[in-house]
Amino acid sequence: MYHLFIGNKNYSSWSMRPWVLLTQAGIPFKEVMVRFDSFAPDSQFKATLQGLSPTGKVPLLVDEDLAVWDTLAIAEYIAEQHPDKQLWPKARTARAQARSVCAEMHSGFTALRGNCPMNIEADLADAGALIWRDKSGVRADVQRLVEMWSGLLEAYGGPMLFGEFSVADAYYAPVCMRLKTYGLPVPEAIAAYVARVCGLPGVQAWVEQARAEQDFLDFEEPYRMRP
Amino acid sequence: MYHLFIGNKNYSSWSMRPWVLLTQAGIPFKEVMVRFDSFAPDSQFKATLQGLSPTGKVPLLVDEDLAVWDTLAIAEYIAEQHPDKQLWPKARTARAQARSVCAEMHSGFTALRGNCPMNIEADLADAGALIWRDKSGVRADVQRLVEMWSGLLEAYGGPMLFGEFSVADAYYAPVCMRLKTYGLPVPEAIAAYVARVCGLPGVQAWVEQARAEQDFLDFEEPYRMRP
Ligand SMILES: N[C@@H](CCC(=O)N[C@@H](CS)C(=O)NCC(=O)O)C(=O)O
Ligand SMILES: N[C@@H](CCC(=O)N[C@@H](CS)C(=O)NCC(=O)O)C(=O)O
Repeated sequence: MYHLFIGNKNYSSWSMRPWVLLTQAGIPFKEVMVRFDSFAPDSQFKATLQGLSPTGKVPLLVDEDLAVWDTLAIAEYIAEQHPDKQLWPKARTARAQARSVCAEMHSGFTALRGNCPMNIEADLADAGALIWRDKSGVRADVQRLVEMWSGLLEAYGGPMLFGEFSVADAYYAPVCMRLKTYGLPVPEAIAAYVARVCGLPGVQAWVEQARAEQDFLDFEEPYRMRP
Repeated sequence: MYHLFIGNKNYSSWSMRPWVLLTQAGIPFKEVMVRFDSFAPDSQFKATLQGLSPTGKVPLLVDEDLAVWDTLAIAEYIAEQHPDKQLWPKARTARAQARSVCAEMHSGFTALRGNCPMNIEADLADAGALIWRDKSGVRADVQRLVEMWSGLLEAYGGPMLFGEFSVADAYYAPVCMRLKTYGLPVPEAIAAYVARVCGLPGVQAWVEQARAEQDFLDFEEPYRMRP
């Protein structure tokens, strides 16, 4: 049985990706939640991951005595172990494009990620309006998302980026959360894709559990005071 | 025939990875060098990539009418198209670890990448000594590299990270360049691995061509004035 180590569901965007991938694909796993008390060397978080994860980060997938760290490697591992689930698109060209968009996410969209940290249960539309006005990098990141998603939805006909659900949708699910939380303006077709992602059972389950957490962490909350 | 779009060999660390991978594996390709005049919207660089690469960056692999962008997706594509070359380790667990270290590189080591941009033909040992003294993030990144490489060289017995040459060595080749250019201090076993990487014919070919370029770009040179 896989053990998937994750962080707080409300905040941990990287953890969300493999959790949604496994859940949506119906692959059984045991979740191990490692609370974000802090990321300091003497934190409980780091102590728990010590000896398990060489980077001291989540997500981490443990399969018997094998540790797979870093989201993209976890996704590749799961896809390879479950060929019947077709987690990457079947066609060679679609698969290469799906890997390109995931790798692009893995190292990119830094303005969006930095300025709009994931915060599922919050409504940060006011902060979002200021970010949208002032941060050209965020606007550029969203423009690239809109281009990418529009192009793929058109090319593959939807409802997901490559037709059926794939790793790519799991990879962009946290981005969908951000667009909602910060109320960033996107065209109708893009909002409709975001709504479809939010409607996936695997995403719904994560979001419900994130809302139930009620664990306010100041260092993850640049835009709100603790209630 | 593949077309691989790359940047200046002296500076473009991302381009180096797939170029070394293809060359070292003996897979034929046509190189298309897109000079880094600048990355401004009106640059020749951006004009050349317009319509080819959705991110306007290099590397970009074009295979007939398929464009694969972002280094990790290119590596996966090449590995998949040439199973005989065994570009990922054969064993499931080694392969998962190799993908983990590549994904970790793809999104990490930001202090090392930011403070020590690749500059193959330069000797920046003086700048490197100051960086080493002042930048704790760089020291932490190098410490992680040393741990990772030592562990893998011990586990798999060398000479490369996973025994034989794999994507992982191509992924860390630009890091080896940086350690040399900036003279960053590493243990003997790590210096020996760096030397072995530099001795790979695919790496030697890139380095020779980088040295021959003689194309000084101020915006890639935070530590030197143009001669
Ligand atoms: N590239 C990594 C990023 C993982 C990451 O940054 N995770 C955060 C939580 S979302 C973390 O564990 N941070 C702890 C720290 O930075 O020390 C991956 O994709 O797995
Ligand atoms: N994550 C990308 C990074 C590519 C990248 O940043 N390439 C640089 C050259 S080494 C580039 O094209 N920069 C142009 C720009 O930033 O506009 C990849 O792995 O391919």
